[in-house]
Amino acid sequence: MAKAKKTKKQVAQKAHSIVHGKDHDGAIRRTLIVEVEKLQGLKNPVLIEGLPGIGFVGKLAAEYMVETLKARKVAEIYSHHFPHQVLMEKDGTLKMLKNEIHLYKDPKKKRDLLLLIGDVQPASPEAQYEVINCILDYMSTNGINDVITLGGYSTGKMTEKPKVFAAVSDVSEIKNYKNIGVVFGETEGSIIGAAGLLIGLGKMRGVKGVCFMGETHGSYIDHRAAQRMIEILSKLLGLKIDTSKLTEKAKESEKIIRKIEEETNKAKQAMQPSEPVRPSELTYIR
Amino acid sequence: MAKAKKTKKQVAQKAHSIVHGKDHDGAIRRTLIVEVEKLQGLKNPVLIEGLPGIGFVGKLAAEYMVETLKARKVAEIYSHHFPHQVLMEKDGTLKMLKNEIHLYKDPKKKRDLLLLIGDVQPASPEAQYEVINCILDYMSTNGINDVITLGGYSTGKMTEKPKVFAAVSDVSEIKNYKNIGVVFGETEGSIIGAAGLLIGLGKMRGVKGVCFMGETHGSYIDHRAAQRMIEILSKLLGLKIDTSKLTEKAKESEKIIRKIEEETNKAKQAMQPSEPVRPSELTYIR
Amino acid sequence: MAKAKKTKKQVAQKAHSIVHGKDHDGAIRRTLIVEVEKLQGLKNPVLIEGLPGIGFVGKLAAEYMVETLKARKVAEIYSHHFPHQVLMEKDGTLKMLKNEIHLYKDPKKKRDLLLLIGDVQPASPEAQYEVINCILDYMSTNGINDVITLGGYSTGKMTEKPKVFAAVSDVSEIKNYKNIGVVFGETEGSIIGAAGLLIGLGKMRGVKGVCFMGETHGSYIDHRAAQRMIEILSKLLGLKIDTSKLTEKAKESEKIIRKIEEETNKAKQAMQPSEPVRPSELTYIR
Amino acid sequence: MAKAKKTKKQVAQKAHSIVHGKDHDGAIRRTLIVEVEKLQGLKNPVLIEGLPGIGFVGKLAAEYMVETLKARKVAEIYSHHFPHQVLMEKDGTLKMLKNEIHLYKDPKKKRDLLLLIGDVQPASPEAQYEVINCILDYMSTNGINDVITLGGYSTGKMTEKPKVFAAVSDVSEIKNYKNIGVVFGETEGSIIGAAGLLIGLGKMRGVKGVCFMGETHGSYIDHRAAQRMIEILSKLLGLKIDTSKLTEKAKESEKIIRKIEEETNKAKQAMQPSEPVRPSELTYIR
Repeated sequence: MAKAKKTKKQVAQKAHSIVHGKDHDGAIRRTLIVEVEKLQGLKNPVLIEGLPGIGFVGKLAAEYMVETLKARKVAEIYSHHFPHQVLMEKDGTLKMLKNEIHLYKDPKKKRDLLLLIGDVQPASPEAQYEVINCILDYMSTNGINDVITLGGYSTGKMTEKPKVFAAVSDVSEIKNYKNIGVVFGETEGSIIGAAGLLIGLGKMRGVKGVCFMGETHGSYIDHRAAQRMIEILSKLLGLKIDTSKLTEKAKESEKIIRKIEEETNKAKQAMQPSEPVRPSELTYIR
Repeated sequence: MAKAKKTKKQVAQKAHSIVHGKDHDGAIRRTLIVEVEKLQGLKNPVLIEGLPGIGFVGKLAAEYMVETLKARKVAEIYSHHFPHQVLMEKDGTLKMLKNEIHLYKDPKKKRDLLLLIGDVQPASPEAQYEVINCILDYMSTNGINDVITLGGYSTGKMTEKPKVFAAVSDVSEIKNYKNIGVVFGETEGSIIGAAGLLIGLGKMRGVKGVCFMGETHGSYIDHRAAQRMIEILSKLLGLKIDTSKLTEKAKESEKIIRKIEEETNKAKQAMQPSEPVRPSELTYIR
Repeated sequence: MAKAKKTKKQVAQKAHSIVHGKDHDGAIRRTLIVEVEKLQGLKNPVLIEGLPGIGFVGKLAAEYMVETLKARKVAEIYSHHFPHQVLMEKDGTLKMLKNEIHLYKDPKKKRDLLLLIGDVQPASPEAQYEVINCILDYMSTNGINDVITLGGYSTGKMTEKPKVFAAVSDVSEIKNYKNIGVVFGETEGSIIGAAGLLIGLGKMRGVKGVCFMGETHGSYIDHRAAQRMIEILSKLLGLKIDTSKLTEKAKESEKIIRKIEEETNKAKQAMQPSEPVRPSELTYIR
Repeated sequence: MAKAKKTKKQVAQKAHSIVHGKDHDGAIRRTLIVEVEKLQGLKNPVLIEGLPGIGFVGKLAAEYMVETLKARKVAEIYSHHFPHQVLMEKDGTLKMLKNEIHLYKDPKKKRDLLLLIGDVQPASPEAQYEVINCILDYMSTNGINDVITLGGYSTGKMTEKPKVFAAVSDVSEIKNYKNIGVVFGETEGSIIGAAGLLIGLGKMRGVKGVCFMGETHGSYIDHRAAQRMIEILSKLLGLKIDTSKLTEKAKESEKIIRKIEEETNKAKQAMQPSEPVRPSELTYIR
């Protein structure tokens, strides 16, 4: 497979777009990256993905990093493939579901970080391919050729000291990660969604990638796995991140999610036994 | 995010269309707004959405208003994303599933109302985005920059005096609603479908919006919540609407819906245990 | 809504095509009507739809008519929306799933019949809209402005003398059907699939339609309801069709379908408890 | 139906592409065949399909042939319709899900084989039609007019000496297969996926095809049925393939698949009872 070069023709037309906020009419008809700020003068940049997934390990870690490192939002990602919902915020406003890219400019000018976080991942293959390709186009446009994806590896067991497992796009990369305590060869199966596709589709376009997977039970929001993930990333990227508030934050998240869960169940119960039937559900003949 | 301006380029081609009835060949191949009448000389217009949802609160309220205010139909909305069914009417005819927009011209020339009602909402994210964008295009074309969406907020409990909760697109709007008895800050989670997306997608295009949610059990058609909703809307819009017939109407609706429900269940039972297998369901090899 | 006129512009590009067999390269990439024979000199034609549905009433009736009237195939309908399967024929060959249109030229030159029969109906709204629009385009091209759709109306009860219920596109048509023994006003709910959409979408394009629904249990293949349906159609169309072989044919069909059902269940049982897991089903992280 | 000729116009635009690796920018936005090597000077070629299916019979047989015959990879097939996952390899790398075509040049210059193998088949009608049409285009471009598809025929019973059943695109072909021990007339129902559609869609484009179905229980990976399949293929194609290692290989595969299955179940259990709820799953109002 040839590496991505600008001169090579695109095989299929892109269904998505990247547009700067001030040039955009605001309509979200397809998948769309809306730039808040043009990226400029990046130093050896790497994109770190932490979208929702098993144990919320990646999301917790990446969002904590965004906050702690005071990264600033440079882009928003919208898609007609995201669930047709809006979130009720505490302040009484409504918020579109979206993903975001935040920039952390390395003060040592060694390696700038782009952090991809968000509310959701799309649910179908076609939607995932579209959104991931859109992100890879954004990376390509901005000269970002490295990606680190964060996820959870579900074991069904609680563990005191969770490991961080990994898988890479290129076998020669393994040595770079082993010496920071990342574990290879103890995972099997497949990686679903952005954490996998960013590596897989990225590799074909010349992007080098590693997926870090925090060992986790799978049924719980796991701040401990997220903490361990941040430690590994700090070692890798030469960052100093105080993870002490993560425990607290994770507990808070857990409380909210539990609450939401209860109410969702209540809502489900309320809606199922004798839900008002819409005319559209009648099916006498066909 | 920039506000919607005509001069800004559309990022993706529209998959839907708005066409005047007399220019339309009648074929429904995509999502389509068919204008019965061109809107002209609107005074400070606002669109009020009341499509089917939890407790049928929004639908009951909006349809009652259409009837009581003698609003006239100005547009019909069809979509290949609506269920592939037609409704059997009492008079022996069949009716396409559709949404409709009705116009109430304010006799005091203060604020004209556009009421969006209908049989169904589409079921997938992509379909919802398409239909809502089509409606927002219609609003934009006709200079309608405000939207009120009506829904139910499911609590799983019966309540004597249901509240009307609200969420807004812009925090500065809250004060305008608090003083008419609308409650903020007691809801959480997300708003699904048109009631949420019209606000969320609308905001990005410069539309100001509020979603009113009638407190309701969630398992029943709730005329009381609808009644309360109309009272709030009357206060907000300076209307005088006698809601006495709503109770009656809601009971009637409930009877019909219960009947339909029974028969749907009968039909489901009839079709599931030993449903005739179609050739297409055989799956010996693959 | 304006009636269909050739001069009015199509609102959306057609996703399907009608092509003559000899001009077609054979590739089925979309929904496609392949003409075996160009229709010419039709006398007051009407299309009768009898695709699979509740109790197989419509399918049984229409296929029996095709056979008895020695109607000849004039078109085949293929679609990428039909299930991705092929049927094993008794002679050892494989057959694509398709729909077919058969022509019965009225020897009395009063009313020619086009009979629409087939293996399947598509399962999603978008697919149904596409296929039905394709058929309506075929009708429009060939000057066919009337449609009769055949279905079953599920009551969950066995009945000795099944009625034929009906619903029409235009209320003024009811009188034409009442006097041949068709029953109006005893059905409610909705009509799913081709039997409903051909009427609903057809009406908007100027096609007059009636849907006949054979009263049936819903769980069984019902040759009696089909027999009654043919009697009604014979009266309406002035045909003489001996239905004595239908009983026999229906029994045969039932035997085959029962057999298939048994084996499907066997296959399902075989595949579910310990079905070999494909690599694609592993979901450790996301 | 007319046979496929280059001069006839394509009815619908192709949604997929065939591109040579060195001309490809690497982006997988649609269904795509990426050629590793241009096919040249093929002798009477036939494509043999062995993708995952019932009992893994076809996959086992075809992959064993690729290995034993030392066939070389000439093309890779990617699709946005394949599951949005990547596989974790034993060496610590990640692998995109794909299909592959391998070429076996017949040393006797009688009949070259193209073997189609892979990780997955797409799950929806539209996706299957697209991928199969892409493969048929590839065959057509390379003058490959014959296809043999391999599958399993589920009986729900264990059998000592599994038969190989068959179905063909053209009845005149049956005699060619009967005398090598293939059984006709003992199967019924339908064939799902590539094994069926390659024959069905191929026939319409002038491709002659046969589907071999190994008699199998359906719940187990069946190396015995695969062994028998290879014997039949060897007879048909004049090959000498030692199947002794297949037993061993199948056992190995079974072990891995069982392991995967266990862990999948574990993962499912872990994720279902108290899975962390994502914000997008809340459904209070709509």
